Amino acid sequence: MADAITPRAKDYPRWYLDVVQKAGLADNSDVRGCMVIKPTGYALWEKMQRALDRLFKDTGHVNAYFPLFIPKRYLEKEAEHVEGFAKECAVVTHHRLVAKPDGKGLMPDPKAALGDDEILVIRPTSETIIWRTYKEWIQSYRDLPLLINQWANVVRWEMRTRLFLRTAEFLWQEGHTAHATAKEAEEETHRMVDVYRRFAEEWMAMPVLVGPKTDAQKFPGAVYTLCIEAMMQDGKALQAGTSHFLGQNFAKAFDVTFKDAANKEEHAWATSWGVSTRLIGGLIMTHSDDNGLVCPPRLAPTHVVIVPLGRNDAERGPSIAAAETLAAELRALPRDDFYGYEPIAVKIDTMFDKQPGFRYAEHELRGVPVRVEIGPKDIEKAACAVARRDVPGKEGKQFGVPLTGAAAHIDALLRDIQVKLFEKAKAFRDANTVTANTLDEFKALFPMEKDDEGGSGLKFVLAHYDGSREVEDLVQKEYKATVRCLPFGDAGEPGTCVFTGKPSPRRVVFARAY
Amino acid sequence: MADAITPRAKDYPRWYLDVVQKAGLADNSDVRGCMVIKPTGYALWEKMQRALDRLFKDTGHVNAYFPLFIPKRYLEKEAEHVEGFAKECAVVTHHRLVAKPDGKGLMPDPKAALGDDEILVIRPTSETIIWRTYKEWIQSYRDLPLLINQWANVVRWEMRTRLFLRTAEFLWQEGHTAHATAKEAEEETHRMVDVYRRFAEEWMAMPVLVGPKTDAQKFPGAVYTLCIEAMMQDGKALQAGTSHFLGQNFAKAFDVTFKDAANKEEHAWATSWGVSTRLIGGLIMTHSDDNGLVCPPRLAPTHVVIVPLGRNDAERGPSIAAAETLAAELRALPRDDFYGYEPIAVKIDTMFDKQPGFRYAEHELRGVPVRVEIGPKDIEKAACAVARRDVPGKEGKQFGVPLTGAAAHIDALLRDIQVKLFEKAKAFRDANTVTANTLDEFKALFPMEKDDEGGSGLKFVLAHYDGSREVEDLVQKEYKATVRCLPFGDAGEPGTCVFTGKPSPRRVVFARAY
Ligand SMILES: [Zn+2]
Ligand SMILES: [Zn+2]
Repeated sequence: MADAITPRAKDYPRWYLDVVQKAGLADNSDVRGCMVIKPTGYALWEKMQRALDRLFKDTGHVNAYFPLFIPKRYLEKEAEHVEGFAKECAVVTHHRLVAKPDGKGLMPDPKAALGDDEILVIRPTSETIIWRTYKEWIQSYRDLPLLINQWANVVRWEMRTRLFLRTAEFLWQEGHTAHATAKEAEEETHRMVDVYRRFAEEWMAMPVLVGPKTDAQKFPGAVYTLCIEAMMQDGKALQAGTSHFLGQNFAKAFDVTFKDAANKEEHAWATSWGVSTRLIGGLIMTHSDDNGLVCPPRLAPTHVVIVPLGRNDAERGPSIAAAETLAAELRALPRDDFYGYEPIAVKIDTMFDKQPGFRYAEHELRGVPVRVEIGPKDIEKAACAVARRDVPGKEGKQFGVPLTGAAAHIDALLRDIQVKLFEKAKAFRDANTVTANTLDEFKALFPMEKDDEGGSGLKFVLAHYDGSREVEDLVQKEYKATVRCLPFGDAGEPGTCVFTGKPSPRRVVFARAY
Repeated sequence: MADAITPRAKDYPRWYLDVVQKAGLADNSDVRGCMVIKPTGYALWEKMQRALDRLFKDTGHVNAYFPLFIPKRYLEKEAEHVEGFAKECAVVTHHRLVAKPDGKGLMPDPKAALGDDEILVIRPTSETIIWRTYKEWIQSYRDLPLLINQWANVVRWEMRTRLFLRTAEFLWQEGHTAHATAKEAEEETHRMVDVYRRFAEEWMAMPVLVGPKTDAQKFPGAVYTLCIEAMMQDGKALQAGTSHFLGQNFAKAFDVTFKDAANKEEHAWATSWGVSTRLIGGLIMTHSDDNGLVCPPRLAPTHVVIVPLGRNDAERGPSIAAAETLAAELRALPRDDFYGYEPIAVKIDTMFDKQPGFRYAEHELRGVPVRVEIGPKDIEKAACAVARRDVPGKEGKQFGVPLTGAAAHIDALLRDIQVKLFEKAKAFRDANTVTANTLDEFKALFPMEKDDEGGSGLKFVLAHYDGSREVEDLVQKEYKATVRCLPFGDAGEPGTCVFTGKPSPRRVVFARAY
C-alpha cells in the first residue's frame, strides 16, 4: 500500500506536508528555503498558468520579460517599498569564483567584486525595474494604457519556510500596468482582483472573500491593496492573490511622465497584481482528504485513470482493450473551455504486479478526479465501475456503468465534481464564519493554546474594530490573528469596536493566517 | 513612416539591432548585460515554448522546477564543469541590505553575510543541483529512465552582449535525463538533437546541420555534445541547440547509484539538452529583410493583419464590416497541428489616422506573414488584396481575391510561406557552403579585414583537418573560425589536413560563429 498519510485530525501541518511530498508535488531542496517542484506539482502549475494566462489575455494584457536582477540603487528610490523588500533579499556582490589560495575549493574573486553602484539583488517583485523601463516606453497618452504581465521566479529570503506556502524562491505572475488617469488604474485594480476571484472559484473551486486590506496589511508602496482570501480546512485564512493600486508612487520614484491630450505633462498611474505557486498550497488545503490530494477537474494534470484488471494475460487482454477504447473515446470528446480546449487527459494504469487496492490508493493519493475499473466481470456485462475522488469509499463508486456512453457519463461526472467541490468548500467556510460581539467571544475564538503549528477548528470572525493600527497590532500579538479583509458587498452596519469600544463603521474579517 | 532600418548590405550587425528594437522584440535594460524581452518578442518565445513543449511531451518527458541557486560547493564537485561555469557567474554573498552608516543609500548587511558553505551562485545551467536531487529520486532501475525538462532563466556573466544572441540572463529549457544504461542515454542524446532539428526546420523554417562537436567545443562535463548549426544571412554559423551525453560524470560527482535488475549497484547515465531565447536571434537572421522581421507562420504571434481602408466613415464602415467577417472566418477554421491547435491569430488594423503606406510598413516591420487590404473598390468587387510578407513589393501581392473563400486562400498561403521560407534558407546555405582543399583557399574564405563585427559574405567551409586541438586553436586565432560540427550523413571521404598535411578521416565544417 502507499505510504500512510498522517490524518488531518491528528496533525494538520504534518498532513499537509505528507500530501505535498507523497503525491509527488514538491520537496525541500538542499538549498535553504528553496523547493523542488516535482512533475505532478509542476503540471498543476502549468494548468493554472494556462487558465490565468487566457484570462489575462482576454482582458487585454500581453506578456513580457524583465531582468532577474534589480540594481540596489533602484530599491533606494521608493521609501515604503525599500522598507518592505530590502530587508531580506539575495544580494549579488561578485561576478566570479576563483580557486582559494590553498587550492581547496572556490571563493568569490576579490578582483570581481561589484562596485557600490553595481550591486544587485534578485527581484523580490519587479515594480522598480519595470517602472525604470516604462520611463523609456511612455511618452504620450497614446502609449497608455500599458497592460503587461510577467511570468517569473522571485526570491524573498525567508527563515521559516513551508512548501508552496512560503519559500525563498517561488514562481508567480506579476501584472504591471500604467494608465493615464487614476480612475482607469483603479478600474484595472478591481478588474484584476475579480479575475483572481473567478479563477479561484471557477477553476480552483475555492470560494474567496474579496475586498481591500487594511493599511497595515497593504503592499509596501501601494495606495491600497485588494485581495482574495480563502479559508483552509483548519479554519486559517490564506491570502491567495492581491491587486494593488499604486497611485503615482512608482511613476514619481522613476520619473515616468506622459503628455496628455492637452499636451500637459502628467505622472502615470499604476497597478500591480500577482498570484504565485502558493495557490497550489491553497488548492491542497481546500479540498484534500486523509487519502491524499483532491484536485478540481479543471486543473487536474490527469482527469481520468483507467485501471484494467485481471489475474492473467487471458483476463487482462480484454480489460486493456476496453480501457484503450474508452481512453480514445474520452480523448476524442469535443474540446471546450471547461478543459482549456485541451483533450481530456487519460492514463491507463498497467501496474498488474500490484494489488488492485494498492493501485486505487495510488491514484487517490495523487488526486485523479475519476477512476475507472474494468475487470473480467465488467467485460462480461460490457460495463465498468466509475469512482469519483471527491466522495470516498463505496458511496462515490458506481458499478455497472455501460461502456457504451461511458465517455459522456465521465465527462458529465467531471463537471459535477467541479461544482460539488466548490459547494462543499463554500458550505464549510460559511459554517465556520461567525460573529464576535464582545471581547470574551473574540478571545474564545482564538485560543492561544492552539498555536499556529497544530491549529485546527479556527474560524473567520466578523467583528467590529475601530480601524486603528494599535488594535491591529494588539490582535496580532495577543491572538495571532489579523484583519484579512473588508469584504465587498458587506452591508456595513455600524457598531462599536470589540477592543476599545470606539465606533466602527462595519465588521471586518479576523482570522489566523498562513 | 516607420523608422528606417539600416540596410543589411550596409551594416549587418546594425541591421540586426534595428530589427530587434524597432519590431518591438527586445531592448537593452539598465542592468548590465540583461535584456528586456518586449511583448512581440515574448509572444514569439511563447510560440516556441508551446511547440517545443509538445515535442518534449510527445517523447515522454515531463516538466519540473529546480532552485535558481546553486550552492558554491556543488560547483566544486565536477572538475571540467567548474572550469567551464565558475568563471563568470553571479555570486550571492549576503541576504540583506541595510542603510549605510551615513544614511545615504543601502549596503549589504555585514551581519547577513553568508558563510563559506552557504555562498550561492545563480544557475548558469542546472546539472549540479538536479543531480544532487536525483540522488534522492533514484534508487532502483525501476526509477529509470527519469525524463525531466525545466523551463527557466539562467545567468552567465558576459562582458560583450548582443540582444538574444548573448546576454547575461537568458530564458531556456534544459532537459536532464537519467538512464540505466549508456546505450539508452546515447539514444536519448540523439533523439533530442533530432527533436531540435525538427523544430528548427519545421517550425523555424531554418535548415540546420546536425552532428557532434569536437572535444574542444563540447559542453564542460560532457563525454560528447551533439548540436544543430544554422547559417545566418551573413554566412556566420549559429549554434542553435545542443544535446549532451554526460556519461556517468554527474552520477559519480553526486554519487547517484541504482540497483539494477540483478541487484548490482551502478552509477546512472545522463544526458542534458537545451535551447534558449537565442533561437529568436537565429530566426531573425535567417529570414528577415531590410523592411524588418520576417517570421515563419508557425511561430508568428499574429498570422494575419487585415487593413480596412477608406477616406471617411461612409467608406470605412463596409471595409471594417468585411474585415470583421473575414477575421471571424479565419478564426473559425479547423484547429490543427500547423497552428499548434490554436485558432489563427488575426488582427484588424484601425489606424485610420495614418496613411496606408505607413500602416503597411508597420506590419512588415513586425513580420506579420499575411496582410489583407480591403478598401472601397475591393468592396465593390466583393474582393480584397492579399500580400505575403516573404515576397516584398508588388510581386507578393494579389489583387481581387474574392472575399468568398478568402479565409481558405489565406490559410493555404500561410502554409506555403512556411515551406518557401525553408526552401529559400536552405538554398542560401547550400549556395554558401564551399570546400577548401588548400591553405590558400581556406585563407581567402576567412579574410581578417572582415572582422566579426561588420562581416558578411562568409561561408561554411568544408575542409580536412587532422583532428588536433592545436589546429583548432590556430584556426580560431588566425581566422576567427571554429569547427562547427562533424555533420551526420557525411560520406566521410578521407584526405589530408589543410593546415598540417596529416591524414584526415573526413571533412568538417569551419565557420565564423555568433
Ligand atoms: Zn517626476
Ligand atoms: Zn559513487
